[in-house]
Amino acid sequence: MTKKFDLVVIGGGPGGYTAAIRAAQLKMKVAIVEKDKLGGICLNWGCIPTKALLKSAELYHSIKKSEEFGIKCENVSFDFAKVISRSRDVSGKLSNGVKFLMKKNQITHFTGTAFLKDANTIEVSGTDGQLAETITSDKIILATGGRTKQFPNVPFDGEKIISSREAMTLPKQPKSMLIIGAGAIGVEFASFYNEFGTEITIVEMLPNILPIEDEEVSKTLEKLFEKRGINVYTNSKTNKIEKNANGISAEIETPKGIKTVNADVCLVAIGIAGNIENLGLEALGIETNRGFIKVNDSYETNVHGIFAIGDVIGQPLLAHVASAEGICAVERIAGNHHPNINYNAIPGCTYCSPQVASIGYTERKAKELGYEVKIGNFPMTALGKAKAIGETDGFVKVIFDTKYGELLGAHIIGAEATELIAEFGLAKTLEITQEEFINTIHAHPTISESILEAVEASLGKAINF
Amino acid sequence: MTKKFDLVVIGGGPGGYTAAIRAAQLKMKVAIVEKDKLGGICLNWGCIPTKALLKSAELYHSIKKSEEFGIKCENVSFDFAKVISRSRDVSGKLSNGVKFLMKKNQITHFTGTAFLKDANTIEVSGTDGQLAETITSDKIILATGGRTKQFPNVPFDGEKIISSREAMTLPKQPKSMLIIGAGAIGVEFASFYNEFGTEITIVEMLPNILPIEDEEVSKTLEKLFEKRGINVYTNSKTNKIEKNANGISAEIETPKGIKTVNADVCLVAIGIAGNIENLGLEALGIETNRGFIKVNDSYETNVHGIFAIGDVIGQPLLAHVASAEGICAVERIAGNHHPNINYNAIPGCTYCSPQVASIGYTERKAKELGYEVKIGNFPMTALGKAKAIGETDGFVKVIFDTKYGELLGAHIIGAEATELIAEFGLAKTLEITQEEFINTIHAHPTISESILEAVEASLGKAINF
Repeated sequence: MTKKFDLVVIGGGPGGYTAAIRAAQLKMKVAIVEKDKLGGICLNWGCIPTKALLKSAELYHSIKKSEEFGIKCENVSFDFAKVISRSRDVSGKLSNGVKFLMKKNQITHFTGTAFLKDANTIEVSGTDGQLAETITSDKIILATGGRTKQFPNVPFDGEKIISSREAMTLPKQPKSMLIIGAGAIGVEFASFYNEFGTEITIVEMLPNILPIEDEEVSKTLEKLFEKRGINVYTNSKTNKIEKNANGISAEIETPKGIKTVNADVCLVAIGIAGNIENLGLEALGIETNRGFIKVNDSYETNVHGIFAIGDVIGQPLLAHVASAEGICAVERIAGNHHPNINYNAIPGCTYCSPQVASIGYTERKAKELGYEVKIGNFPMTALGKAKAIGETDGFVKVIFDTKYGELLGAHIIGAEATELIAEFGLAKTLEITQEEFINTIHAHPTISESILEAVEASLGKAINF
Repeated sequence: MTKKFDLVVIGGGPGGYTAAIRAAQLKMKVAIVEKDKLGGICLNWGCIPTKALLKSAELYHSIKKSEEFGIKCENVSFDFAKVISRSRDVSGKLSNGVKFLMKKNQITHFTGTAFLKDANTIEVSGTDGQLAETITSDKIILATGGRTKQFPNVPFDGEKIISSREAMTLPKQPKSMLIIGAGAIGVEFASFYNEFGTEITIVEMLPNILPIEDEEVSKTLEKLFEKRGINVYTNSKTNKIEKNANGISAEIETPKGIKTVNADVCLVAIGIAGNIENLGLEALGIETNRGFIKVNDSYETNVHGIFAIGDVIGQPLLAHVASAEGICAVERIAGNHHPNINYNAIPGCTYCSPQVASIGYTERKAKELGYEVKIGNFPMTALGKAKAIGETDGFVKVIFDTKYGELLGAHIIGAEATELIAEFGLAKTLEITQEEFINTIHAHPTISESILEAVEASLGKAINF
């Protein structure tokens, strides 16, 4: 007998599983189909395991400078395999946690690959490719995510030409690594492997590493990376990558001429493609655009009753956006009022050292859009807490429009940046002004005081700088 | 010739120096009188040096469990004197930083003790007690701070009976320490000394440690402290403290009977008294109340033109409150509009391990005030980032009123609590509702997601729990 649901979610990542839980909370009968582990790329091969790796790197870094804090350690060493295996354990436990959440919320979990037979019918195939189940549903949410793009004509081989997935499970630490692409993924792995002593070269076509961040942040990070011995090539094009007996050799076209980079492995982190294939989209006439599914404000595709959320609908490719889209779609399916997602109020984080986080417009973007801006900038080095914990690199930069005092953008590089950005998230969501911000008392001594000081600086009233 | 100023600030702590800088920014001719180091207790003997000490403790703790993260250290040890001296260095540098800020803002800095000769005249005496300067000013701000209360009939001797000041400069680590009073100061030193192996007993008269915090937070911390081997006596009265050849012996009346505690030293942290003496308040008829100066909403005393801010005006005795009061007083002296400080929107932090931070009402207080409340609680153990970094103790608890969805209070115990509270500070200042909060997208994976989940939980809609 065909199983019938109110909602079937295809894909068990942070978009899909969140949508499924919210739908269950709203009393829908829900199924989720996932061909791999629950939690998706984010939890199994992305956000979470990399943060576990970076925690080990951070600790190793702290230990190397522990004498400054009055603590002595002898023969400090690391066990690369254990760093990796802890990261896998964390992911494993969290994936089991999602499995538990599915049970707790009485969500039916199908392990297999989904195919849309028609707008209400889904065929689920097992790992053997054989049809295992046919299920029907009033509504369907596609949350199939994305996958790493390969370098043109240089397919991933999982050993010498790798994606982020292999970069977090290498059986042996490489002595040297070439990283193509200096977005968040490239930069995080550069930070991680450099900390443990791998010789890193990172190449970016655009003028700055973390090219979507404010230029001041990117330039500061670039300087700090170079101080750490990371070779950074910006404005640089990778002409070719060739495998050889020792690893790889690449030809990089830099502003200062052609460079040849030899490395044990090459990590390609040049972008994400949406998983739109083999889903049955074509036969149903579901529209896509440049490889991503097209949706309206309620995340419904052009086919009534079929929705899509997360990486498969395109930028910004962030787990928390996928979750928010999932919640919005489900609330609206349930007929509840839910505001549109404000895509200008989404924090973005890079967990390198020091951390980078931002929200809203960069200075350049704000000016391009015609805003007259007031900038406030406060350096961490002027902050008591930063001095007390010995982490004085970085700054907070805020961008307000002159006319209404509206917060246009906020950019942080420094200790706890990825946590501090939450306050700016609330500020952006509520569209608060400079004056409202300045009257918010921040606890002393915290790094969050740098936020208040930056806002005060935008009015020429910073106290400690 | 008598020097004349628009504003003289007496006391160079976070209240006083902040007030002086803001006044200078507003083009006043400003002087500051400080008998000790600029930065006051907070910067020299409080918030800042303790955070430096606690950073060393935190690092030592991380190193002890580093093998879990794949890192090996042999013969881990610490140099207590260096831990202390780093803390002093941090304070020293920051105090010099304040000196620099005074110069930069063209604030005249008098080193000496101030006495109000009349409502516009201040006599400054040098360390020799001799009159060094007489200055006049249109307005005066008293920011003389507070000092540690002594245990009745047991005066501080700086060796066996000590205050927080000596606790942060002990020449030798004590083997055992009795701490009387489990407010923020007592608890932070308990956390610090316990980490480095001192046997700690902490005694609190009230039913919970950190008695002003939400009971769930206090109880959780108490359990974690006991797990660490700290002896916690709550509902307990210290009947007597006696010095002996080895240190001290104290009689503690606990609910389970009288206990005798022997220790190398006794840290008394039972409260703060306002520094209202020898200032000339009496002759001018400046009103005080229970040892603190009385002020109106603009921080003006009953004597026109004389203001007071910070610890010397009483609760809450927090550096960031002193700074905010200083700014408010100065802006109003300058004739600018400045809103009243909302004393219900002030974050409080305790930097023990795990950290504690809160704002607004506790659950008990909200109920006492007659609110019908909705509680949201989210445990750190359900959070991806907390798992990734291996810090899963604690929770976020939010208290909303049922009628309007107003945020009444927020309570955090766990990693980064003292930074996370900033978002709640903004929320309280703007009086945002449950619904506004829930639509704020939080970055994944961060500890700040626990805030969103707790708010969702208050609506029965937490995703990951």
